[in-house]
Amino acid sequence: MFIRFALTAELHFNRDLTPEAVEAVGEAVQDANTLLFRKGVPADATDEEVGRITSYAVTGAVLRLEIVSGPYTRAHDALFRFRKEVAQKLGRHHLGLRNIVVTSFRIRIPGPVPESAVPRIPFITSADHHDDAVDLVLDLSAADLENRVPDRIVRLVQEKVAAQEYGGKGEHWELISESSRRERVYDGDPTQEMIRRRWIKHGASRGQWIFGPQAVEIFRAVERLVLDEIIKPLGFSEMIFPKLVPWEVWMRSGHAKGVYPEIYYVCTPKTRDPSYWEDIADYYKVTGTVPVDQIRERLDGPVGGMCYAQCPPFWPFVQGETLANDCLPIRVFDRSGTSHRYESGGIHGIERVDEFHRIEILWLGTREQTIATASRLHDLYTRLFEDVLELEWRCAKVTPWFMAQEGMVGESSDAEIGTRDYEACLPYNGSWLEFQNVSVNGDKYPKGFNVKIQSGEECWSGCSGIGLERWTAVLLAQKGFDRANWPERLARLVSEPEEVFRFL
Amino acid sequence: MFIRFALTAELHFNRDLTPEAVEAVGEAVQDANTLLFRKGVPADATDEEVGRITSYAVTGAVLRLEIVSGPYTRAHDALFRFRKEVAQKLGRHHLGLRNIVVTSFRIRIPGPVPESAVPRIPFITSADHHDDAVDLVLDLSAADLENRVPDRIVRLVQEKVAAQEYGGKGEHWELISESSRRERVYDGDPTQEMIRRRWIKHGASRGQWIFGPQAVEIFRAVERLVLDEIIKPLGFSEMIFPKLVPWEVWMRSGHAKGVYPEIYYVCTPKTRDPSYWEDIADYYKVTGTVPVDQIRERLDGPVGGMCYAQCPPFWPFVQGETLANDCLPIRVFDRSGTSHRYESGGIHGIERVDEFHRIEILWLGTREQTIATASRLHDLYTRLFEDVLELEWRCAKVTPWFMAQEGMVGESSDAEIGTRDYEACLPYNGSWLEFQNVSVNGDKYPKGFNVKIQSGEECWSGCSGIGLERWTAVLLAQKGFDRANWPERLARLVSEPEEVFRFL
Repeated sequence: MFIRFALTAELHFNRDLTPEAVEAVGEAVQDANTLLFRKGVPADATDEEVGRITSYAVTGAVLRLEIVSGPYTRAHDALFRFRKEVAQKLGRHHLGLRNIVVTSFRIRIPGPVPESAVPRIPFITSADHHDDAVDLVLDLSAADLENRVPDRIVRLVQEKVAAQEYGGKGEHWELISESSRRERVYDGDPTQEMIRRRWIKHGASRGQWIFGPQAVEIFRAVERLVLDEIIKPLGFSEMIFPKLVPWEVWMRSGHAKGVYPEIYYVCTPKTRDPSYWEDIADYYKVTGTVPVDQIRERLDGPVGGMCYAQCPPFWPFVQGETLANDCLPIRVFDRSGTSHRYESGGIHGIERVDEFHRIEILWLGTREQTIATASRLHDLYTRLFEDVLELEWRCAKVTPWFMAQEGMVGESSDAEIGTRDYEACLPYNGSWLEFQNVSVNGDKYPKGFNVKIQSGEECWSGCSGIGLERWTAVLLAQKGFDRANWPERLARLVSEPEEVFRFL
Repeated sequence: MFIRFALTAELHFNRDLTPEAVEAVGEAVQDANTLLFRKGVPADATDEEVGRITSYAVTGAVLRLEIVSGPYTRAHDALFRFRKEVAQKLGRHHLGLRNIVVTSFRIRIPGPVPESAVPRIPFITSADHHDDAVDLVLDLSAADLENRVPDRIVRLVQEKVAAQEYGGKGEHWELISESSRRERVYDGDPTQEMIRRRWIKHGASRGQWIFGPQAVEIFRAVERLVLDEIIKPLGFSEMIFPKLVPWEVWMRSGHAKGVYPEIYYVCTPKTRDPSYWEDIADYYKVTGTVPVDQIRERLDGPVGGMCYAQCPPFWPFVQGETLANDCLPIRVFDRSGTSHRYESGGIHGIERVDEFHRIEILWLGTREQTIATASRLHDLYTRLFEDVLELEWRCAKVTPWFMAQEGMVGESSDAEIGTRDYEACLPYNGSWLEFQNVSVNGDKYPKGFNVKIQSGEECWSGCSGIGLERWTAVLLAQKGFDRANWPERLARLVSEPEEVFRFL
């Protein structure tokens, strides 16, 4: 069994077809079925597998076509190949093609396809489920066909079937390496202890903390260690990546495929003319209440969202460019602002927040350079966690982050592409916290943002995120608040905490 | 002439008033007009200036009142004072007050009040303008009266009249000090030159740049100078202030009074249940278009906005607290993320952007401590601009920033409260750019967030913002790109620019 497409469409011309023109159509159909639609098709493909016009009829200025196909020269592709041909042929008869009206479009996708694998989108008017296939009736314009909507629907259904099949297996997780067990010196929850000490306090928004001087000193010590042990030895240069991310970036990065549930969306004022907003301000001044619903009506967008993954907004810097061989691999990092994720409700510790701070490391180059940089990073992280910070940690291969963020599961097809998470145990509750990752993303971003290499080799990239909240949570959970138990390097970087605030 | 209020209201009881109850009402009215409404009123106030019940009538279970007043014991205050009294008195007759219906409410505000000074808000049903007053007819509930809406409307109208009178005078600007003229060594536009050199590139969103390694080195040099010359000498401690600002914070900071035209608003998903968003993702996957309008319908909020002024989200850290005398003055700073302002359209240089990076300095203590810290800051900034960076600069007293951001004009009433801007000339176009400010904000924020001092003294605060884009624009505009012309300290902090990226 193979996939099948069937469409009917009307080609509207600027005036009635003459008998000579009708004859030319007949020749064009004959030619298309025998030659045109066969182009690029494997020689052993059966007739049923290839696009063909099964009937045509002319009424006045309208040429009506029925086209069916299997997987080769799909019905919609056949339609456009034929359009080009027939428009040229009838042009000689002084006939101009005005427009194309698609009157029906059906797809049969083979295999058992559960109802939940058929997307709820306006194009699909009905789905008829059989044991061995699903028949979809679609409502599509010629523009939709040119935009390859049918192919995308097929791919989407197949992805959903695969995801549901995989779903039963759970998240991919495969241990790569781990430290020995460390002596436990503290069993408290660092967040609770920091709150008690007034080092941190909840911010006014959800999943958000205000960090006092003592907590920030630990953040900056982590940053110092990462700079000295990772960033400088590998020669990463600091850049500043934007923190408001428009759709355009997430369309190219792939996030537009699935990140919607967790985004903090950003909307812009319809105008910045103060008089447009005066009554909103007046309403607030008079009532003490912000008229949220009225404001909502005066906003455009959402135009995108607040930074979610940190590296996508870097890519416009190199978008559409060809990079010289001798500047590769390029190694950069960003630590210029916050990331925001709409996490599940409730109040959590600093290790699970809506607003967080991360140093994002990014590199690009050839396949070999990209893999080599990831490998060097793993060496240095391991040294840092094992020898310098003396943590109890483990490293696991997981679902690549870009697949996870597109709502996909499983593993990538290339064994070199993927994400490794570093996890550390939290003695106070016995769980393991993912606090660090290293990803080789293959050619995904260079392709999405159209970045090439002078040599013509495939451009690859990788990234690694260092979450300051999570590192701090891990360090304090394993080493506690008594600096006598801290690894020496860390203790040297953090001074005896000073009480800047004293509350009565 | 003085302000006048007039209202009619019905007090609905749980059952009909008995003749004894009606008699008790009569006594309560007499008592209110002669004693109750006179409480706290200056002895020399005329009868006309004070609230009084001018008529009352009982029909079944309803007591109808007409109350008028001048500025003292305003009609709505009189209503609630009387309610308490009469409810108590009729309670003895087993009558319970069920609710209050305001049937009319009028205010006469004296003075010529132009139409443009009357807010367009739902409460005001008509405004009758006379030469020497305006008569407002209002539609208000009893809850609105308890929420002091009439007083807020009066204050708002008076503010608008004052603002329009002041408006003709233009922005407040008063020169405080200035440097001598410096030798001009460069006349280019630094943004254009940085673009040409590929040091910066436009981000994908409006008014947003991606800064390459060479530009970030200058940012970090500025940061180093500010840390060494300002922050360390005065002992400021680093904190991390949140970067998503909910309404709650802007209501207390005063920004909810006027910052609407320039906010990047933030909306949250109605739910993070992936199945709720699946069809949105599917629509994108099938069409390649993000369905912005459909997403919009699935968002809550706006819940607030992206960081605008950097210090307001600090304040919940100390909200509701009393600070010990011996920890004051408290001096902190934040450099943990971006600020966002919806600026007027078009593409500008790095000195006028929608997304920018700022070190925010904040201090609080007694009035004297707050003023003294501002004064020390001015000394150190002056030294930095004059001796270290050898800039052509000037310092001017301007409309306090918190007044400007609430849509107000003019000066504050206390000469010690206010904002001083540092401006530097941009030789390439001869204009002066505000690149730095120091503000003493009086008790505004401590009051808004209910922060007290152990000693009982008034708590004051100040803040100062160092915009990295603007400092960089000023340095490059005045000193150019040839490091031989740079002041020595700056040149030492920035290495010879390295080309991390090379494009073909």
